[in-house]
Amino acid sequence: MPTTVFSSLAEFSEIMAAMPQPNAQAQTDAQARDAALTKPPGALGRLEDISIWYAGWRGEAAPQVTSPQVLVFAGNHGVVAQGVSAFPAEVTAQMVMNFEQGGAAINQLCDLAGAKLTVHAIDLDKPTADFSLAPAMSESELVSALATGWNAVDTSTDLLVTGEMGIGNTTSAAAICTALFGGEAEDWVGRGTGVDDAGLAQKAEVVSKAIALHGDILADPLQVLRHLGGRELAAMAGAIARARMEKIPVILDGFICSAAAAVLAATQAGALDHCLAGHVSAEAAHKQVLKELGKAPLLSLGMRLGEGSGAALAINIVKAALACHSGMATFDQAGVSES
Amino acid sequence: MPTTVFSSLAEFSEIMAAMPQPNAQAQTDAQARDAALTKPPGALGRLEDISIWYAGWRGEAAPQVTSPQVLVFAGNHGVVAQGVSAFPAEVTAQMVMNFEQGGAAINQLCDLAGAKLTVHAIDLDKPTADFSLAPAMSESELVSALATGWNAVDTSTDLLVTGEMGIGNTTSAAAICTALFGGEAEDWVGRGTGVDDAGLAQKAEVVSKAIALHGDILADPLQVLRHLGGRELAAMAGAIARARMEKIPVILDGFICSAAAAVLAATQAGALDHCLAGHVSAEAAHKQVLKELGKAPLLSLGMRLGEGSGAALAINIVKAALACHSGMATFDQAGVSES
Repeated sequence: MPTTVFSSLAEFSEIMAAMPQPNAQAQTDAQARDAALTKPPGALGRLEDISIWYAGWRGEAAPQVTSPQVLVFAGNHGVVAQGVSAFPAEVTAQMVMNFEQGGAAINQLCDLAGAKLTVHAIDLDKPTADFSLAPAMSESELVSALATGWNAVDTSTDLLVTGEMGIGNTTSAAAICTALFGGEAEDWVGRGTGVDDAGLAQKAEVVSKAIALHGDILADPLQVLRHLGGRELAAMAGAIARARMEKIPVILDGFICSAAAAVLAATQAGALDHCLAGHVSAEAAHKQVLKELGKAPLLSLGMRLGEGSGAALAINIVKAALACHSGMATFDQAGVSES
Repeated sequence: MPTTVFSSLAEFSEIMAAMPQPNAQAQTDAQARDAALTKPPGALGRLEDISIWYAGWRGEAAPQVTSPQVLVFAGNHGVVAQGVSAFPAEVTAQMVMNFEQGGAAINQLCDLAGAKLTVHAIDLDKPTADFSLAPAMSESELVSALATGWNAVDTSTDLLVTGEMGIGNTTSAAAICTALFGGEAEDWVGRGTGVDDAGLAQKAEVVSKAIALHGDILADPLQVLRHLGGRELAAMAGAIARARMEKIPVILDGFICSAAAAVLAATQAGALDHCLAGHVSAEAAHKQVLKELGKAPLLSLGMRLGEGSGAALAINIVKAALACHSGMATFDQAGVSES
């Protein structure tokens, strides 16, 4: 599939409506292989489910994971003017430099996972509009950010992680969740990088105000993304959609990544069938987003860093699942008696 | 420390009573380093706790994990004559051959983790006595199995996993837990490699009978291991004790490994302070053992294979923790503004 195949939200929606499905024969073959391996049936637990799921998306009964990619998108948010973050907005650009110099957590996690890390800083000098006062992005800005994500996917990769950096973006994610899933702003805001009680109350007030301001247009999930999102959230959505088109399995990261992915799920049922939840973060609402998405997290380690860090840590679990599935001997091969 | 430093259970107990403690200065230094890294405080969750804990045991403020070892011990159990397993006893030796030929799950997981796998088949042609009728081992048999584990640890390793293979050994582990922690046999038996309801009831009956048979001698934890254990359980206990003497951190595997480790904890308070719980298995009672040991598992993926598989999968999490801790830039180094 060529790059940049959409130039409007309507075209993006059309692509989403024609998403490919997994290969049923590969899944069946993988299931049969799993049953023949030298272990009691089901003894590898979720690793077995992951293997069969992955085999379906890759269209092979016994694949391996050899070329993971971690994409980190960075964006700045006008809403930081409302005092919603514990860190100043300049940290977004400073952390991008830290990624480029290899000093961040995600650098170490990618090295360990054998994953290629690619960082896209998206118009950091042009923050989105303060969404408590105006739509965060114009349609063309949103389409451009979606396309940045779409085009960033290396189509030779066999497992994708999307992560983010953007001071203020837990407030954006909370607003998106409030718009998509309902409830009160208080249900979806959290401490992010570490706001105090007053900061938390301020985040809830900003989100409530934005939901009231934008009104009925928020019934359309892509308009939710445009009005309340950020460039890095849109880019993650674009990359996850592209991965689907290329049948590249995806590991979702934390709250912000999951909120961006939720826009796709709300746009098209089943849009995240090629995605696993890498972890559940300590950001309070993430657990609820995963519940809404029907995704059980692979890890629960109290992480809340973003950068794709939780999902990058989960790469090894998917690798392990396929290493066992595709590398183990069968009962016949090993001469082991069955039960 | 030289190999084979004990020749009786009394001497083993003496060694246990003089276990080394972690280096407090290294822990303090690691805590200070953690606070300076380019992330919000606490944002790496349990990875931060693991790093500081690991630094203490290794006596270095910023160590890495470079040489993990996975030890798998295999033993046979006389109690299989009571019909407690879904697989025949010959599978123990067949699986040892599978380990040696590289066909088992643990082989794939060790390759992925960069861990050295060492397999010790312990007197497979001499099953322990049926513990529902007699003590499983003599004192000299137990001392010999403890020494096998003790001597199997490569002292140049910096992270140890102990795993096992032994048809019938979930029944042995359930009996040990009943003796150590109390409650009914029904609370501690589970489906193991896959027994049906009748098999499960039979396991509970066998365990109840054994507890009644051996009586008061089970007040001594090492006698619990001798009367109800197996050679591979004793070897795991010996290896975990040796790791403590060498200040090598350990990742515990599933129910059987945890039951063996629990013998050490019951012998000497704090005996497992150098151990993490790698995962919680699907074997029902494992969760309860971990609660008794005060260990929160790193992974919960429904695995129940043994072989050290869950702990081997968790090696990457410990590696990741130290890779972040020791590899990340500080706020000062990266020129990132603090909150």
